[in-house]
Amino acid sequence: MIKAGIVGLGNLGSRHARNVIKLSSQVELIAICDRKEVVNRFLETHQVPYVYTDYDEMLQNPELDAVLIVTSVNAHFSMVMKAIAANLHIFVEKPLALTAEQAQEAQLAADKNPDKILMTGYMRRFDSSYMEAKRKIDAGEIGKPIMFRGYSLDKDSGAESAPERGDQNGAWYSEMIVHDVDLARWLLGSEVDTIRTVGGCYKHLEFEKYHDIDNACTLMSFKNNSMAMFYTGRTAPHGSHVETEIVGTDGIIRINAIPRKDRLDLYTPAGVVNECADDFLNRFADAFAREIQEFFTCIAEQRKPEMTPYDSQMVCQIAQKAYQAYLSKDLVTM
Amino acid sequence: MIKAGIVGLGNLGSRHARNVIKLSSQVELIAICDRKEVVNRFLETHQVPYVYTDYDEMLQNPELDAVLIVTSVNAHFSMVMKAIAANLHIFVEKPLALTAEQAQEAQLAADKNPDKILMTGYMRRFDSSYMEAKRKIDAGEIGKPIMFRGYSLDKDSGAESAPERGDQNGAWYSEMIVHDVDLARWLLGSEVDTIRTVGGCYKHLEFEKYHDIDNACTLMSFKNNSMAMFYTGRTAPHGSHVETEIVGTDGIIRINAIPRKDRLDLYTPAGVVNECADDFLNRFADAFAREIQEFFTCIAEQRKPEMTPYDSQMVCQIAQKAYQAYLSKDLVTM
Amino acid sequence: MIKAGIVGLGNLGSRHARNVIKLSSQVELIAICDRKEVVNRFLETHQVPYVYTDYDEMLQNPELDAVLIVTSVNAHFSMVMKAIAANLHIFVEKPLALTAEQAQEAQLAADKNPDKILMTGYMRRFDSSYMEAKRKIDAGEIGKPIMFRGYSLDKDSGAESAPERGDQNGAWYSEMIVHDVDLARWLLGSEVDTIRTVGGCYKHLEFEKYHDIDNACTLMSFKNNSMAMFYTGRTAPHGSHVETEIVGTDGIIRINAIPRKDRLDLYTPAGVVNECADDFLNRFADAFAREIQEFFTCIAEQRKPEMTPYDSQMVCQIAQKAYQAYLSKDLVTM
Amino acid sequence: MIKAGIVGLGNLGSRHARNVIKLSSQVELIAICDRKEVVNRFLETHQVPYVYTDYDEMLQNPELDAVLIVTSVNAHFSMVMKAIAANLHIFVEKPLALTAEQAQEAQLAADKNPDKILMTGYMRRFDSSYMEAKRKIDAGEIGKPIMFRGYSLDKDSGAESAPERGDQNGAWYSEMIVHDVDLARWLLGSEVDTIRTVGGCYKHLEFEKYHDIDNACTLMSFKNNSMAMFYTGRTAPHGSHVETEIVGTDGIIRINAIPRKDRLDLYTPAGVVNECADDFLNRFADAFAREIQEFFTCIAEQRKPEMTPYDSQMVCQIAQKAYQAYLSKDLVTM
Repeated sequence: MIKAGIVGLGNLGSRHARNVIKLSSQVELIAICDRKEVVNRFLETHQVPYVYTDYDEMLQNPELDAVLIVTSVNAHFSMVMKAIAANLHIFVEKPLALTAEQAQEAQLAADKNPDKILMTGYMRRFDSSYMEAKRKIDAGEIGKPIMFRGYSLDKDSGAESAPERGDQNGAWYSEMIVHDVDLARWLLGSEVDTIRTVGGCYKHLEFEKYHDIDNACTLMSFKNNSMAMFYTGRTAPHGSHVETEIVGTDGIIRINAIPRKDRLDLYTPAGVVNECADDFLNRFADAFAREIQEFFTCIAEQRKPEMTPYDSQMVCQIAQKAYQAYLSKDLVTM
Repeated sequence: MIKAGIVGLGNLGSRHARNVIKLSSQVELIAICDRKEVVNRFLETHQVPYVYTDYDEMLQNPELDAVLIVTSVNAHFSMVMKAIAANLHIFVEKPLALTAEQAQEAQLAADKNPDKILMTGYMRRFDSSYMEAKRKIDAGEIGKPIMFRGYSLDKDSGAESAPERGDQNGAWYSEMIVHDVDLARWLLGSEVDTIRTVGGCYKHLEFEKYHDIDNACTLMSFKNNSMAMFYTGRTAPHGSHVETEIVGTDGIIRINAIPRKDRLDLYTPAGVVNECADDFLNRFADAFAREIQEFFTCIAEQRKPEMTPYDSQMVCQIAQKAYQAYLSKDLVTM
Repeated sequence: MIKAGIVGLGNLGSRHARNVIKLSSQVELIAICDRKEVVNRFLETHQVPYVYTDYDEMLQNPELDAVLIVTSVNAHFSMVMKAIAANLHIFVEKPLALTAEQAQEAQLAADKNPDKILMTGYMRRFDSSYMEAKRKIDAGEIGKPIMFRGYSLDKDSGAESAPERGDQNGAWYSEMIVHDVDLARWLLGSEVDTIRTVGGCYKHLEFEKYHDIDNACTLMSFKNNSMAMFYTGRTAPHGSHVETEIVGTDGIIRINAIPRKDRLDLYTPAGVVNECADDFLNRFADAFAREIQEFFTCIAEQRKPEMTPYDSQMVCQIAQKAYQAYLSKDLVTM
Repeated sequence: MIKAGIVGLGNLGSRHARNVIKLSSQVELIAICDRKEVVNRFLETHQVPYVYTDYDEMLQNPELDAVLIVTSVNAHFSMVMKAIAANLHIFVEKPLALTAEQAQEAQLAADKNPDKILMTGYMRRFDSSYMEAKRKIDAGEIGKPIMFRGYSLDKDSGAESAPERGDQNGAWYSEMIVHDVDLARWLLGSEVDTIRTVGGCYKHLEFEKYHDIDNACTLMSFKNNSMAMFYTGRTAPHGSHVETEIVGTDGIIRINAIPRKDRLDLYTPAGVVNECADDFLNRFADAFAREIQEFFTCIAEQRKPEMTPYDSQMVCQIAQKAYQAYLSKDLVTM
């Protein structure tokens, strides 16, 4: 039995915690850590032996084999570094760090713990539709991949949540595009060469004061000569929209062009309607469960996850360069 | 050059007239007939040698080879009988007649003019989607047809137009279901055996006083053991909805499940929307043009249209029995 | 903690068992029962205190609060009767019994245990799409329901599995249509009045010798004057296809018109393809988990499931009449 | 009556010619010009007073009011210049010229004939779906346009047709992207600022020797800060695919995401299939008819088409820069 602790019990953290609990034949969730009222709320419905409000204290628990870090993005890097120092298996939500430099530092540190796992939570890879797309591509069903198109759109909303991210350059843009950058590298099988980003604040001008944008298009060329187009936005009228297309020499796969929330067609005076959902936790519920399962299975089988710390680091680095390309209004080369 | 006249220049009639005019290398529209103000409106944009307000008078024009009858349904039968007596080629809008008895009388009369064409305007057979479905079925692409499902739904509206049809039992129901009965016989390749209809006035109770209904389901068995389900309604919220499904032993074809008016997907706060149209003239614009073309090509090539007067008569007879099945609340056998 | 046992660990039974295990904070799976090799296979991955190969023996375990019956359909009735006698909460897979008489006997027996639950596994009611449809209907979003259309199609396959059902009249047809009959009563909120069924063996003539059919259409009228059309088939080329439509006076809901297995659009030389799945366990994975959750929550909260033993009994009775309607080639009245 | 001549009676030219003939109340097609065998084929089914094999000779016909130029792209520029010199109304298929310099020369010459029309055939603007999109955008239904995405994909085929275009740099790429550049300017309402193109020959390496490519992605920024992404390809497995998306601050419109050839859903063992068509003449049949109608209506009403010679010239110029951006592997500024 693997013994695990989790820090961060917000929406996504408590989801991860419950997914750990369901793996009861393989893992035991022995520790949780968050602010007092948050852990108390969790304890109303679940029993956990050790309860912490201090992360450093939790890391000193000698029974721990693995830790899950699901805190605010700002804390990822330092918490990962401490968990590496504590010689634990680590699952950290994406992104690994806020800057490319930190991500690289974390990667190098992790590489020195070769028998421990550092897995970043790019859950899309564990969604059944993406898994099927990857399987088809690997089986050659679309020939050689030529072009990747990735849309990551948040449902339209104002800047309420922006300040908590701090005053980071392009923090929201980076947090969104890392997913697509990960998919593009994964599906095109190559490294980015050049980047051009255009964009700005089109609707919610308040993001400007947080040095961020609300819509951007990014074009990348890859070293194997394949191409990628990205559209990253936070003003989608219909809901949370994650769409991916991969064009091969012999076939094209498009994923989630209509981000339906269910299997209903509604025939209404406005036309035929497919309702969409703005809740990525629901959209990727199975993927979140599957990635946690994979983390513990890797530990049990002493193998590494497909996505390496190097991948996590590269994704951060590319996202940072993509934002620099926006700022510089010029072509950026990796 | 075939010389043609048309009686009835309403929405559909003037559409047919314009389609005739476009066949300028093959046909000449020499005569039109309708009320004074209607013909005058048509003459504002088109030139026609002979203009009538009296159908009998038009029929006496010795230059006429063919007549198109696009009047109110009540007049179809008597006008067809007169045109048969005048020994003309006849195109008549569906249905051939309001009662099975009249339809049979017209069919028998037409059969005595073996070198003249009597074609009824079941335009769906000339729609490219239906033509493609028929081609696939005839080519064996779905195996042996087992089941037909036909939806004919009018966009929801009140009883404004009902009185003009007179106080006919089930006039609207019959006018709608004849299309699907025609398709079912055409695509299943067999004759109806038994009929069961349930239905009533669910929303527009005013139809009751015209002895009509606003929604009905009909189940028919065919002599070759195939089956057909019909849904006929006038309360569709989204628009005019003509949908057809044909299930074979090896494949299924569904036509127009989402009755889109164009190729747009609208991403809106309500979801992803496909707008629909309530205008069957637009939906079947190409089909209307193609059926008129076929009528004159049959005349030119001295061949008969695929749909015979017997077919027209059978369709009327089945529709009438289907409404009787509704009234009797029992199973009706043909 | 509720203590539960399960009999039947086939595909669906082991799925139910695993879903019970995941409810670890509420229930303990203390007993399993099946043939030796089947229970052994289950024990390879799970630990269960009591293991049986004899159902009667399991029922004598005094710790048991509840039993789940997931055996072959033939055994449902007698196992339910024994579990009622043992005074247990019962979850039984649908249908409750093979004949209307047995279903009624079980219902009457269950009604004498008013503080125990008898829940039949009509999982569609727990699928998020059906739940959303029901919510919209109850909220009046489509007005008054007029018409129900239910398709239940198995992926095309031969008669390999038929013999095990024994030589029951219309066993497959009944097993399929009970789902749609349940939905129709649930969504139309009324009882069946008349039934007409047409159908036969169109592709797999071997089913005739098991007194069964491979495709059928059924038309029912309901006592509140609403209507239902059913298409039940086992020759779907594309996969397992469960589609439902509910037409109201003000809106229409269609569920699963394209039974996609995932969110992929494949652009191929054949056209744009949505792959379908023939695996109803995957299609309804969430629904199966949710219905088991509901069963135990009802026990814990001492309330009754929405679907009553009377409902289960009525569904069996209607299905049986529907098959009689096929045999008699006549209209059948409930 | 306007008297018109046409040069070029290939697939598209004869389509235009027939569309002119159908406008019989407004226009008379008095002259055709092409190679001997081509004009003879046309004369088999149509009567035309004047027949030419020499364009210059046709231009000397004093009865001519207007000329339609539907020849190979190479000839557009010189034929337009001659028709301007002959003081005729001109409809020319897109693009106006092969180079930006020629396009500008033609524009300037045309501007000196202020009472004559020079209309370039960007037919997409006359497609009912694009017209509806434009109407919605102008009505503010999607807010302020932010982003344009244009796909123009030819069905996969080899380089058979390439040589006839001569050895022009990026001739195919330019011919394709001009359509989308026109749409982007039209729908975003602004001028291009910067361009980045990546691409190459991924499947049909033979295009390299014609100095062309088979797939490319292009990112443009516009002077009003809006953005455009283009995907131009000639290896689409499924057919001819023209898709357009326009994202506004309040709504998104996508046109033709599934380039269906008809309204059929085919349920097959491979899944649910929408067949696509590789024939843009069919896809845009109505648009071609409508643009010809507009050309003659403009003449009759003495007004200018919405698309000006300046627009045509700009589109050519942008397409040329976009190809230069590909060659230079750098950012290009207009």
